[in-house]
Amino acid sequence: MIHSLPLQKNPDLLVFVPLLFTVWSDDVLTPTEISALHTLIKKQTWLTEEEHEFLITQLNPSNPPSAEDLKSWLKEIRKANVSQAANLAAVGNALAASSGRVVRPEAQIALIGVEETLGLIPQEVVFTFYPESRKSLTQGQVTQHNFDVDLLAKQLDGDQAPLIAKVKKILCDPEFTYLDTDNLTEQREKVLQWAKHLAKQGFGSIAYPKSYGGGGDMAAYFSIMETLSYHDLSLVIKFGVQFGLWGMSVYFLGTEKHHQKYLKDIGTLALPGCFAMTETNHGSNVRGIETTATYNHQQKTFAIHTPNVAAQKEYIGNAALHGEMATVFAKLIIDGKDYGVSAFVVSLRDKQGKILPGITIEDCGRKMGLNGVDNGKISFNNVVIPKENMLDRFASVNDEGNFSSPISSDNRRFFTMLGTLVGGRIGIPRSALATTKSGLTIAIRYGDKRRQFGPEGAEEVPILNYRTHQRRLMPLLANAYAMHFSLQYLTDRFIKRTEEEMQEIEALAAGLKAFGTWTNTQTLQECRECCGGKGYLSENRIDALKNDSDIYTTFEGDNTVLMQLVAKSRLTEFKQEFSNMNVFRILNYVADQAKTSLSEMNPFVIRNTDDEHLLDPEFHISAFRFRERDILTSAAKRLKRHLDSGMDSFDAFNVCQHHLVEVGFAYVERIILEQFQLAVEQTKDEGCKKVLSKLCALFALSQFDKHKGWYLENGYMEGVKTKAIRKQLNQLCWEVRQDAVPLTDAFKIPEACLSAPIARRG
Amino acid sequence: MIHSLPLQKNPDLLVFVPLLFTVWSDDVLTPTEISALHTLIKKQTWLTEEEHEFLITQLNPSNPPSAEDLKSWLKEIRKANVSQAANLAAVGNALAASSGRVVRPEAQIALIGVEETLGLIPQEVVFTFYPESRKSLTQGQVTQHNFDVDLLAKQLDGDQAPLIAKVKKILCDPEFTYLDTDNLTEQREKVLQWAKHLAKQGFGSIAYPKSYGGGGDMAAYFSIMETLSYHDLSLVIKFGVQFGLWGMSVYFLGTEKHHQKYLKDIGTLALPGCFAMTETNHGSNVRGIETTATYNHQQKTFAIHTPNVAAQKEYIGNAALHGEMATVFAKLIIDGKDYGVSAFVVSLRDKQGKILPGITIEDCGRKMGLNGVDNGKISFNNVVIPKENMLDRFASVNDEGNFSSPISSDNRRFFTMLGTLVGGRIGIPRSALATTKSGLTIAIRYGDKRRQFGPEGAEEVPILNYRTHQRRLMPLLANAYAMHFSLQYLTDRFIKRTEEEMQEIEALAAGLKAFGTWTNTQTLQECRECCGGKGYLSENRIDALKNDSDIYTTFEGDNTVLMQLVAKSRLTEFKQEFSNMNVFRILNYVADQAKTSLSEMNPFVIRNTDDEHLLDPEFHISAFRFRERDILTSAAKRLKRHLDSGMDSFDAFNVCQHHLVEVGFAYVERIILEQFQLAVEQTKDEGCKKVLSKLCALFALSQFDKHKGWYLENGYMEGVKTKAIRKQLNQLCWEVRQDAVPLTDAFKIPEACLSAPIARRG
Repeated sequence: MIHSLPLQKNPDLLVFVPLLFTVWSDDVLTPTEISALHTLIKKQTWLTEEEHEFLITQLNPSNPPSAEDLKSWLKEIRKANVSQAANLAAVGNALAASSGRVVRPEAQIALIGVEETLGLIPQEVVFTFYPESRKSLTQGQVTQHNFDVDLLAKQLDGDQAPLIAKVKKILCDPEFTYLDTDNLTEQREKVLQWAKHLAKQGFGSIAYPKSYGGGGDMAAYFSIMETLSYHDLSLVIKFGVQFGLWGMSVYFLGTEKHHQKYLKDIGTLALPGCFAMTETNHGSNVRGIETTATYNHQQKTFAIHTPNVAAQKEYIGNAALHGEMATVFAKLIIDGKDYGVSAFVVSLRDKQGKILPGITIEDCGRKMGLNGVDNGKISFNNVVIPKENMLDRFASVNDEGNFSSPISSDNRRFFTMLGTLVGGRIGIPRSALATTKSGLTIAIRYGDKRRQFGPEGAEEVPILNYRTHQRRLMPLLANAYAMHFSLQYLTDRFIKRTEEEMQEIEALAAGLKAFGTWTNTQTLQECRECCGGKGYLSENRIDALKNDSDIYTTFEGDNTVLMQLVAKSRLTEFKQEFSNMNVFRILNYVADQAKTSLSEMNPFVIRNTDDEHLLDPEFHISAFRFRERDILTSAAKRLKRHLDSGMDSFDAFNVCQHHLVEVGFAYVERIILEQFQLAVEQTKDEGCKKVLSKLCALFALSQFDKHKGWYLENGYMEGVKTKAIRKQLNQLCWEVRQDAVPLTDAFKIPEACLSAPIARRG
Repeated sequence: MIHSLPLQKNPDLLVFVPLLFTVWSDDVLTPTEISALHTLIKKQTWLTEEEHEFLITQLNPSNPPSAEDLKSWLKEIRKANVSQAANLAAVGNALAASSGRVVRPEAQIALIGVEETLGLIPQEVVFTFYPESRKSLTQGQVTQHNFDVDLLAKQLDGDQAPLIAKVKKILCDPEFTYLDTDNLTEQREKVLQWAKHLAKQGFGSIAYPKSYGGGGDMAAYFSIMETLSYHDLSLVIKFGVQFGLWGMSVYFLGTEKHHQKYLKDIGTLALPGCFAMTETNHGSNVRGIETTATYNHQQKTFAIHTPNVAAQKEYIGNAALHGEMATVFAKLIIDGKDYGVSAFVVSLRDKQGKILPGITIEDCGRKMGLNGVDNGKISFNNVVIPKENMLDRFASVNDEGNFSSPISSDNRRFFTMLGTLVGGRIGIPRSALATTKSGLTIAIRYGDKRRQFGPEGAEEVPILNYRTHQRRLMPLLANAYAMHFSLQYLTDRFIKRTEEEMQEIEALAAGLKAFGTWTNTQTLQECRECCGGKGYLSENRIDALKNDSDIYTTFEGDNTVLMQLVAKSRLTEFKQEFSNMNVFRILNYVADQAKTSLSEMNPFVIRNTDDEHLLDPEFHISAFRFRERDILTSAAKRLKRHLDSGMDSFDAFNVCQHHLVEVGFAYVERIILEQFQLAVEQTKDEGCKKVLSKLCALFALSQFDKHKGWYLENGYMEGVKTKAIRKQLNQLCWEVRQDAVPLTDAFKIPEACLSAPIARRG
């Protein structure tokens, strides 16, 4: 067509070629378009009758141009090289004016305004011809380097830096290369070997007293657990079961004789062991366990017995293959009386690995993850143990054969015992945090490199430049930093704990464990999806990160149960003021205390949408505190209302259960924000402070967006404000994207641990 | 103490024993409590000085009673057997009056009101002594049988019932017993054997024309895919790749000669093959694939070539081991010109299984799931194929060596080709639905049986009786039924499709695929956590259900990309009226059309909290429609605003991307509700209608709760209404719990397929 007779005779007709390309290139020609174009052509009085006819035939729907035609038109248009043209008229004119011709004025203005007729945007049309000239913001986003990664990494590690570096170095040793196998036996053997290597380094015993070969350093233990979690989580759990659960149960529940007899060997892994608390029928409700330890006065022994199949110890790590002994939790029975749960050391295997008489161990088999840990079921058939095997720090049988304990109440004794083991609720979320950091590092590096789709004809764009990708990953990155600072705070509180603080610390640990592990699971699911098909391949490790840590929301306390624990603790928060007041009394008190802070419900505040205000940390923490307080008092009022109306208390707590979980969340979220804001304030370096400040605001705003319904429902914010928050959230996600890769670099996860091909640099 | 001297001298003192038990049994005695009790005791003028002293010593914090003491007090109290007593005074009196004594009046009233002093609830205290007398609603909840399960099952299966029964029967054959292995080779071999069995049944070819050995029945194909999904999903995907992707690409993209040559053998699995579209660098953006098919005029052949390593075909099912041929998507190049993507049949292996020259196949290795499918990477090094191997329904090279197609636009041709393969977007969500049903069946049966915690001293309660458990699972059960009816609707629309409807059906399929697969992943995650430790054991199959189906949110169209596709289709919904109007013109039109329905924003409605109203299907569908319309018009306005301000269109769509995904969700949710309500209306049996009606309301209200923020932000509901909705939602979850087990029974999933020990009945 380009070289057809009419065009050769009158090159001014070339002004129509870009228009023709545009209407034919993507769509079928519609009646409306045809009609509009016919009108336009008829208006061109400078055209001959022939030329009118010619142009009309070019717009015949039953006679479309061939693919060849389209390609040659585009070729000509691009030869004209007028990417700076503003519209079809300008492009057409350039085409008609090539080789220096002068285009007649009527032809020059023929197509002015045709875009509007066709519902097109002039600039967009021009970009179709010259896609390389498009300069969208989305195309332009790149990773920047706005802060010193090494400085930030140092801040994150704090005083644990040398130890963390040491652990990372060991993990990079060829000995710790991941094993590529499906075979359960091989996996478990490898994990045991790795654990032995770590024990040789003194890592296992690091928290035990120095007199027993330990390092006397609990903080170090947690740092090791967390750093190991950049590697194989089966190793982390094997490590935690041996040195954390087995070892620390002997340490915290036993007395001097037990420490002397066992601790050193536990710490070197010479004595592998288990923590046999959970039973098939009793997981969360540990107080209901049915295994018995019956005292024999004559022999001065206990008989450990599993009364029915559902009372078997289940999911016991280290049991199926390696454990030689176990701390067994059982009900102490003396002369037919039940003295509640106590702990006993029981031998499972001899030194040759043969299971001892009366003991049956069954392998739990394959699991969703953590297949390098040999979980087993254990049952006891009247297995006799000597009296001194009772871990007797909180309860014992005296020489007369009578029960003796400084704590009369079975209940209080039990919770005091459990309280000594709260360290597990710190180690697990810290392990989850490292797992989260690994997942985010992989997904963010990949998102920065992986290009898919882009403006028509232009280079494809990194997927991390897309809003939805940013909205999915950036808040999770903020969560990770938030959890980091909160867990350091929790660790610190735990190390420095006093007796009076124990209930508060237990609640804090329970809440952060629940929040941290749920966030981890959500993060890894998001990472898998954000990495598409690559995320599904095991070589990129997201499946292992997700599947191995999936059980974290269940063990060490089921998260839903934990959150209720937190809520009940919060309901008794005034305990300090009223020394151990009964829950029901508290409800009265709390309900009376409920008052709305007038300044917070100020009409100006609930509608304020200024950027400065929305990004103000004071506004953030006020809102979080308000929410925490309001949900707590409304839960208390609600419980009280039900109880006053005569509702059974078990029903009342069940009816309010969901509400109580929210009480737990609101409390934890406030703590997390406080700690994050504190960390930001304490950051000295300007560049680091700026990026952490942004991340902290992102955490706050993403929580506002998450709880938008609550804030609106309770009148704390109005619609205009939540919309402004969403806009600000989008903007923060956009900005943080540019710092995302370095923010994950600051985790300094060893490349050998990350191991995922899609996370390789360059 | 019970037998101490003061009590023997004055048995009236026994009235204090229950009080003493209560204050000592759980807590340390607090100063406040001590003070209050001292006051109470001093008021008892009927006591001697000695007796005052005696009682005071019983309240000495440094001299608590022993565990023995507490036990013996409780024993005495229980002997009194007054579970119907209203308070401590009554229990104390019963104790003092045992053996027929008359208790002095002052002693009888001594403890009236003591509970309030201590912040206790009288009835609760009495239950502590006689826990078996507690009758809470939570304890009383059980599974009921309110409707005919068989009738409901029949309704769900519809006219596909005989075929579904047939497939289930085959899945129960010992041949289909799950293989318990870690070994990838064994898994893949087993899946191939299973697939061959199914092919022998005629299942593979069921949708192909009868002239090629098929059944000519597309609806049957989908029913088979869904029913197979109660079994091993690796088999489902192997089946889908062979008969769905490979076979149907030959059928829909090829012509007679291809059908004759290949279809029969594909349908019997005599000719295993692959669908080689996705490349490492181009997944979602299929139009960007780089594999080339270059025409050789002299030889009349094409050379298939992989130009760089990132252009390798990746994640190709059936490629690593078994596929002998593949439909390969490549850019057609003739004389250096690119004619866009076309499809070609290429041989990969000879009949002996040896890979042919020029072809390299690499195993993708282990994946998160679906390890029974042999996914591979394929690259071609100038592999020559004859001209007739081009699947030439929509594009061909004619005898003169020129490109020929009924569709000029490369773009339109490509999307038309893809459109013929939309069946995949129906099979996948239907497979996800079966997986969801399996997960829910396991989790709900377990929740009904698994008991944990209960009122103090009473029998533990099934975890399905807890509000949080109900809130987690019941809405997901409602979602499953909602998806069931929607996917039947989608299938029906697809079977009966006309050319004009194709864009609508493609949007519907894309939206339901995204919604259904995301819901499935969320459901299985929830099921894993709700089943605790048991959910983590592979024997209970939740890990396989979750991991195998995890990729469903990515393949057959990444869900986020699909939702944007849906949104863009919705933005052009007026296309029908304006025949193919340009998107930008649409925005103008849609923005003009935006109007608020006055009746919907009626102040009465936005605050109406009546139960009848909240459960009214008319209210539900109005709200869903309002949300759909409002989000669509606000997205259009927003896009228009950005474009009018001169924003680059790529940026505008990116900035609104999150909003567009919401447009997709709102549309899909409305369709789903409409179809669910229709199914309820069409249900004849009263019992089934009642339970489905409840489920449908539960679906609607859980969606309201999920989108609470949106409804509040946009003034469609006020806080008082969303709170009432939440209350109603809790109530519906409570009620549906009682029907939950039979509702999963209605899925009639074969026990051999479920296979999970925790799902075994009895």
